Amino acid sequence: MTDRDLAWNRLESETVYTCPGFDVINETVQLPDGTETDFDYVAEGDSVVILPVTTDDEVVVIEEWREPVRRINYGLPAGGLEPDDSEPAAAVERELAEETGYEAQRVEHLTTVEPTNGFADTVFHYFLADGCTPTAEQDLDHDETIAVSTTTFEKLLSAVREGELRDGRAALGILYYHAFEA
Amino acid sequence: MTDRDLAWNRLESETVYTCPGFDVINETVQLPDGTETDFDYVAEGDSVVILPVTTDDEVVVIEEWREPVRRINYGLPAGGLEPDDSEPAAAVERELAEETGYEAQRVEHLTTVEPTNGFADTVFHYFLADGCTPTAEQDLDHDETIAVSTTTFEKLLSAVREGELRDGRAALGILYYHAFEA
Repeated sequence: MTDRDLAWNRLESETVYTCPGFDVINETVQLPDGTETDFDYVAEGDSVVILPVTTDDEVVVIEEWREPVRRINYGLPAGGLEPDDSEPAAAVERELAEETGYEAQRVEHLTTVEPTNGFADTVFHYFLADGCTPTAEQDLDHDETIAVSTTTFEKLLSAVREGELRDGRAALGILYYHAFEA
Repeated sequence: MTDRDLAWNRLESETVYTCPGFDVINETVQLPDGTETDFDYVAEGDSVVILPVTTDDEVVVIEEWREPVRRINYGLPAGGLEPDDSEPAAAVERELAEETGYEAQRVEHLTTVEPTNGFADTVFHYFLADGCTPTAEQDLDHDETIAVSTTTFEKLLSAVREGELRDGRAALGILYYHAFEA
């Protein structure tokens, strides 16, 4: 299949809702069969997701409230890219320090995926942060309350297997590392 | 950490934008430190994501246009639950037939995750669909154009490793199956 067979033609595009987390874009598009229709998607942008491994070979994990699903979430530190970030790796050190108070000796890109590209333009850049030690100051946004702890990679993988780690963003990073890096 | 330490208190909730794919909910919330603030999230709901394995031990994959990221996406069939679906498994047979024209002999739940619970309530229920044969009629929604093919699981896993399969929804299912089921 080629672009010609599957691609949509964007005719008009308008931001119809804005909030601190995302924008909503409403478009008029032409489908491959020529018909015109509306399509809405969420513009949320790029984030880094970090697998922080300490000098004691433990993983730094966080717990935080996730309002859309109304529960405390157990997972990996993460955060959005900022305009000053020249590349995704630049966000890793900042987000790791802000959310956990840890600093890494070495950062390595693992993979990059679009988690929900049917309705959002979100991109997750996964990084291994190796040789982490608790030397920084946790520095949270006004609406963040984050509890930090450490665990073993084996326990995290078991939590993914049993469906106890329900955060798909963290689960993908753990599974990728297990498959190709561990 | 307990709910008391991390949970937000929902004071008000209002649907502020509606479209065929999702709603946007604006809330007034009280943070753990007592301050009140706004929070917006996307209400998009539950979907099934299907790993369809044929009687010849190949995986049925699809290509479709993804407007939020403006490219043809290579991945696994999936689709939203409908009001009549008594449970997620009920959606598997329908979505598999509609998107691919295949029918399965056996369906098995793999895992359930929230891919982007920082800004959306989206839930993905992963299922293995085993013993698939091309016996149904592809029956697409008005804005779907989907190309169907088959490949080996090893090639899919390699595409995830190399970052060629950029769809995180599909990548998580492939990695979970590789880690715990294959």
